Amino acid sequence: METSELVDRLLAGERRALARALTRVEDGSEDRLREIIGLLHPHTGKAQLVGITGSPGVGKSTLTNELVAAWRQADRRVAVLAVDPSSPFSGGALLGDRVRMQDHVLDDGVFIRSMASRGHLGGLSWATPQGLLVLDAAGFDVVIVETVGVGQAEVEIASIADTTVVAMAPGMGDAIQAAKAGILEVADVFCVNKADREGADRTVRELRDMQHLAEHHEGGWTPTIHKTVAAAGEGITELRDGIDAHRAWLADSGGLERRRVDRARLQLREIALGAIRRRFAQVEDGQAVDRLSQRIAAREVDPYTAADELLASLES
Amino acid sequence: METSELVDRLLAGERRALARALTRVEDGSEDRLREIIGLLHPHTGKAQLVGITGSPGVGKSTLTNELVAAWRQADRRVAVLAVDPSSPFSGGALLGDRVRMQDHVLDDGVFIRSMASRGHLGGLSWATPQGLLVLDAAGFDVVIVETVGVGQAEVEIASIADTTVVAMAPGMGDAIQAAKAGILEVADVFCVNKADREGADRTVRELRDMQHLAEHHEGGWTPTIHKTVAAAGEGITELRDGIDAHRAWLADSGGLERRRVDRARLQLREIALGAIRRRFAQVEDGQAVDRLSQRIAAREVDPYTAADELLASLES
Repeated sequence: METSELVDRLLAGERRALARALTRVEDGSEDRLREIIGLLHPHTGKAQLVGITGSPGVGKSTLTNELVAAWRQADRRVAVLAVDPSSPFSGGALLGDRVRMQDHVLDDGVFIRSMASRGHLGGLSWATPQGLLVLDAAGFDVVIVETVGVGQAEVEIASIADTTVVAMAPGMGDAIQAAKAGILEVADVFCVNKADREGADRTVRELRDMQHLAEHHEGGWTPTIHKTVAAAGEGITELRDGIDAHRAWLADSGGLERRRVDRARLQLREIALGAIRRRFAQVEDGQAVDRLSQRIAAREVDPYTAADELLASLES
Repeated sequence: METSELVDRLLAGERRALARALTRVEDGSEDRLREIIGLLHPHTGKAQLVGITGSPGVGKSTLTNELVAAWRQADRRVAVLAVDPSSPFSGGALLGDRVRMQDHVLDDGVFIRSMASRGHLGGLSWATPQGLLVLDAAGFDVVIVETVGVGQAEVEIASIADTTVVAMAPGMGDAIQAAKAGILEVADVFCVNKADREGADRTVRELRDMQHLAEHHEGGWTPTIHKTVAAAGEGITELRDGIDAHRAWLADSGGLERRRVDRARLQLREIALGAIRRRFAQVEDGQAVDRLSQRIAAREVDPYTAADELLASLES
């Protein structure tokens, strides 16, 4: 299918077109990515972007699932991009997606998709922010990106989300770990899940104590702390409202606009640096270099003029 | 002085113009380097380029000094570029140069210059190959680049010289060290200096043994091994003849042409990659990025089109 037709169908709300567009964004060449993002981009910028991260075992996918239901109760359309940095697999056909979808399988207002993380060491793949743009253009009111918090992932998620939720569980020493990893700086909302377990209040207390220590946040937002028992559906509405409250504050304070410009800057840089890196590789590869080297050795051209010729001949 | 006038005077044999040209090559901006190399380059490619390297304490500078005298006896004009990777200082006014020059101070056919090594970790600076071009253009028959053999320096010297001489001293375990550091692969000529010391024959034997183990050399040159006592002037003529013999073999076998093309390739790459790196820095710096990021955030332009605009606006 032509990309322009695919985009038209996606904008018209066709789910198959949406799935296909995500696949193109994931697997596509630079040229295809450029084409599809170029067409979709004018239709983006409307969705509320929520990042959810946390260590393995804190119950992130249950939490995400419950949040989806909570936003559906508020009549908002919700998409989830579940990024697994440890998996080489992705795509809508995965068992994981089917399990995740079972609560929402008849609901047209929900879309869930797994994506492998590739390319960035310990972080999100380049396809992730593009995937968010696709889901945004498809008209979802809330787009959640969920990922395991390892290494760079939290910081990267904060760079692409309006609101970053850091999920923890009691007794995992997570508050101290989080402080060490600099997560306090990126979290807008904390969720202490499995709050029926022993130590939940202590984790909340540790988080509060550490917030006082940490320099925080543009414009003076103090991250809120919510207790949930996602498996029993407890505290979810409050967590949803907490996330919405942060987003409302962000819009009022001018922070939303600032984050959007920051995201645009990241994206622009990544694309421009990618183009420059490809030129690097072309020089290192050296095929275009050989003929010019012979002319330099024969003193037909000086090395600086030859370098100008070489750079001009590389694909931009 | 205008660069074109400086180059004219250098080509006419003016020593002050030569010293000044070397300073410009060392300290000059990219633009000045480009200008001076562009003018000098057509006049290069005639000198015999000799690299001399070895660990501290093997007597390299005495050896170089004696070799200069030996080539002078053969009526060849000789220049030395002494590169000190550990020194932040360079230039003709250094005490070291004066001491070195004392044997040749009245001899117009000798020129000695120290150069600090900057920019390349543990290796030669970018100015070194440019300095060789300047001395080559100035009409010296033999141009020696001498440096302490630490880390990458031997490999880099081999990449810019026709003949690479690795100097050693007995009893320093140098043969084995050399094997470990991969120096056997880059040496065309070995010199066991201080050969009146105990263990000289053993060092020669070790070198021979290791040569059999090492895969060596384009076209089948087996590095020659020479014993010298530089402080007493012993073995120097034979060493000089050994170096000349390698160069003659190189010219006959086609290896000289190949090395020249390889050198040109290195130089071309370095210049082209430098230009690309500057563009990188311009994107990272982000000043041109800000305005475009705002336009992306406002959905006035998509990020790929913005990246095209950004790259087009960068200085090439």
